[in-house]
Amino acid sequence: MTSGYPIRPLEEDDFLPIHRTLTAWWDDWGDPQAANQRMLLLPRLFFQHFADISMVVTDPRDEVAAYLIGFMSQSRAGQAYIHFVGVHPDLRGHGLGGRLYRRFFELCASRGATRVSCVTSPGNIRSIGFHRALGFEVATGRPHSGGFDVQPDYDGKGLDRVCFVRSLEPIATPDIEKSTSGGGHDVSAP
Amino acid sequence: MTSGYPIRPLEEDDFLPIHRTLTAWWDDWGDPQAANQRMLLLPRLFFQHFADISMVVTDPRDEVAAYLIGFMSQSRAGQAYIHFVGVHPDLRGHGLGGRLYRRFFELCASRGATRVSCVTSPGNIRSIGFHRALGFEVATGRPHSGGFDVQPDYDGKGLDRVCFVRSLEPIATPDIEKSTSGGGHDVSAP
Repeated sequence: MTSGYPIRPLEEDDFLPIHRTLTAWWDDWGDPQAANQRMLLLPRLFFQHFADISMVVTDPRDEVAAYLIGFMSQSRAGQAYIHFVGVHPDLRGHGLGGRLYRRFFELCASRGATRVSCVTSPGNIRSIGFHRALGFEVATGRPHSGGFDVQPDYDGKGLDRVCFVRSLEPIATPDIEKSTSGGGHDVSAP
Repeated sequence: MTSGYPIRPLEEDDFLPIHRTLTAWWDDWGDPQAANQRMLLLPRLFFQHFADISMVVTDPRDEVAAYLIGFMSQSRAGQAYIHFVGVHPDLRGHGLGGRLYRRFFELCASRGATRVSCVTSPGNIRSIGFHRALGFEVATGRPHSGGFDVQPDYDGKGLDRVCFVRSLEPIATPDIEKSTSGGGHDVSAP
């Protein structure tokens, strides 16, 4: 159903619509701080200065259906980073996340990237499964009861993260377009 | 006294020492959320992927005395951005902030930047005076009682910002090295 939804580059005008999703698209289990934390992780600078390989998927009404915000590393040659991803809750499981990631891989590779990294929160089981299905490896760290390794205090005190890295050499992956694990995760926020 | 303190490029190992400053160097007037907000504005990605033109000043004991975290815009040619700056409270007014900014201007210009932008919070009067003294102009917005313009909700709901831009064409500026307004500000956090 969403396979025809177009992907376009991020623009600064996407700032407000995407910030609205930070409250509307996540279920924070009653934690009023969680949406504020996501807001602080997405200052306007990302919409201004990393718009070229960041992307938005729009629905037939031209509203934001999904987005991926990432960049080429400035100081680590050949590396790219995915900072933040969102998929509309009604559209999860339709492969939008997988489409965005694959498009990002293509764009990065065309600029010389050979690996992509990103992080997620240990509680975001859906995101962890999604990244593994896409060929990401989990960095070695402290074993977590969920069956994956965690980097304690990775992004600051109390901000544990699961760290992913994926080579951009061709890797056999399942058909993520039809996977039920696609999207609905944020990459860096709890 | 601090003019001999060396400036070196930021490293990922600076993450923990700099995150400690986010609590120790700011007076938050009893607001327990303010340090957490700064922490979220400085995820590890900045220390990994924008380390080359970000800088640290160290004291004679090799401890962090000041730092500037910035980058070249990836999607806006000729633009650079200063994201976050800190100066040890005991060392403010000695020109460390000015030294870091001038060095950043040089590094950016050598990579083709012709303008640098940054933002600060409306309550950070010291930072606003510092940027004006360094030749930054304040973007037109909603007039504030402090005598400068503010962009409401610039970085999200409730996150008003004062926006600065400075050309990297030569501008006559006061001798910031001896100014009393240098440093002690964070550029993007309240």
